[in-house]
Amino acid sequence: MTTEPAFIDLLRTIATDPSARGLDDDAAVLTIDKQTLVLTKDMLVEGVHFLPDDPPADIAWKLVAVNASDLAAKGATPLACLTGHSLSRDADWDAAFVQGLKAALDHHGLLLIGGDTVSVPPGQARVLSLTAIGLPSVPVPPSRSGALVTDGLFVTGTIGDGWAGLTLLQTGKTEPATLIAAYRRPKARIADGAALAQVAHAVMDVSDGLLIDAARMARASGLAVRIDLAQVPLSPDFVATIGSDQAAAIAAATGGDDYQLLFAADAEAHLPVPARRIGGFTQGEGLTLSWNGMPIETPEKLGWLHG
Amino acid sequence: MTTEPAFIDLLRTIATDPSARGLDDDAAVLTIDKQTLVLTKDMLVEGVHFLPDDPPADIAWKLVAVNASDLAAKGATPLACLTGHSLSRDADWDAAFVQGLKAALDHHGLLLIGGDTVSVPPGQARVLSLTAIGLPSVPVPPSRSGALVTDGLFVTGTIGDGWAGLTLLQTGKTEPATLIAAYRRPKARIADGAALAQVAHAVMDVSDGLLIDAARMARASGLAVRIDLAQVPLSPDFVATIGSDQAAAIAAATGGDDYQLLFAADAEAHLPVPARRIGGFTQGEGLTLSWNGMPIETPEKLGWLHG
Repeated sequence: MTTEPAFIDLLRTIATDPSARGLDDDAAVLTIDKQTLVLTKDMLVEGVHFLPDDPPADIAWKLVAVNASDLAAKGATPLACLTGHSLSRDADWDAAFVQGLKAALDHHGLLLIGGDTVSVPPGQARVLSLTAIGLPSVPVPPSRSGALVTDGLFVTGTIGDGWAGLTLLQTGKTEPATLIAAYRRPKARIADGAALAQVAHAVMDVSDGLLIDAARMARASGLAVRIDLAQVPLSPDFVATIGSDQAAAIAAATGGDDYQLLFAADAEAHLPVPARRIGGFTQGEGLTLSWNGMPIETPEKLGWLHG
Repeated sequence: MTTEPAFIDLLRTIATDPSARGLDDDAAVLTIDKQTLVLTKDMLVEGVHFLPDDPPADIAWKLVAVNASDLAAKGATPLACLTGHSLSRDADWDAAFVQGLKAALDHHGLLLIGGDTVSVPPGQARVLSLTAIGLPSVPVPPSRSGALVTDGLFVTGTIGDGWAGLTLLQTGKTEPATLIAAYRRPKARIADGAALAQVAHAVMDVSDGLLIDAARMARASGLAVRIDLAQVPLSPDFVATIGSDQAAAIAAATGGDDYQLLFAADAEAHLPVPARRIGGFTQGEGLTLSWNGMPIETPEKLGWLHG
């Protein structure tokens, strides 16, 4: 069995062009003459990233949103995409999928320009992919690795809503609608990403979990990061449903599926978008947590680990 | 069950931008300011496009070659690509795959700049994809739909070698090496494609079978096409192994996996690359076949139909 990190290590030995950014960023940044493009490709697998009975329109939405979120993290405006589709056993499923695809493409400003469709053998999981291309708002899109030792760590929006939505669905609940929508129909922070690219030193989107993604940014930047969990922004519906104590905050910060933007910026900078300061960087390595300033233990699971 | 054509019809209702070329070409052609890009995305599914015991390095090679061939058909020089990979149960498989990937990327001039890796549930088929980006050699890359009624139909190289290689492997043979290599390690006709883009009125690559692909070019161009099967170029090893009679030519022309370039050009044009004239276009629709000028029946199966 190969793990995802081990396989990416193999790929890194051949992806040596600077545009690949060491396969360590949300997206590739390719410059052709004077035109710079941001490119990303994310896949969703039935039974892994979505369930067979999830609404197909929502699966299509998510496929688009997770890719658009990678573009947003690099401050890029979505432009065009190509799909990769496993044909369904069910014509209604495919029709609903295309409907959701159209809604998500329209919302995120992506043109569908091509792709491939395959039949898979009976009983096989659907494998869906998208390749998305965007245009950066600054000449050099922010990486994950640019955090400075004096920077604060900030996050947009609220954290944990997508995880809460999934948890509710898994227990048969369909309310509150905001949490369900956060899970099923996340919206990439495109305008925020474009604005942040101007001032942030490092940006990534929160997809696998706030803690694991923050730890990745710190490692890529050669620094340690500290987070005060009491500062993690929670939505009113999250607080009403899950709570606001330490356990709730840990669940929010490790659940993933947020598609908010996590960024490093001068702690005193005037930020162009609403964002919460949740911590900062220091010399060293690793992640340390506190709760209203009191050190607390780091949970064993920081987020969703692949492979 | 949705068929591939039915699903693509659904996608066409949303892929209305001209860069999508009606989802009816080998690749998309996207212009950003003054930079035009050619983009394609092809997938390979275990058990459908390759067998579980095919050598992984050869599968990787083919994944790259089929995408590079789409770029070649549009006269584009390969530039960069993103992979989509289903993690293997077998670390040796993945290591050999990456080795073949590197060889094929180097051969075709593609930089690996990103992608995604997923775990699939146990017992599931591998689904592999590549998105490839190329730079066109002419301002408007040739489509499939530009054939003129006075044009001849031409093809590069020889036809049927890939099919013959597969047939040999399926019967336990590993010789002649040229036929096995044509199946396992096809080479996209990149330089030929760039040269043909200057003079051809319509170009596509032969992937599903010469006859079905020629019929598609004719339909896209609003014309009928005629092919003299005796003119279909066969390699010496194909002739020695399979033969050169009408049945052999039909097998070659319907087997697929050729990755040669099929093109429409002025019948008297001076061609910049070696190519064989195998037929021509007329008013009307459909495909008619002859053998040394004598009309023959069109076989029921023109090539490899998906879905």
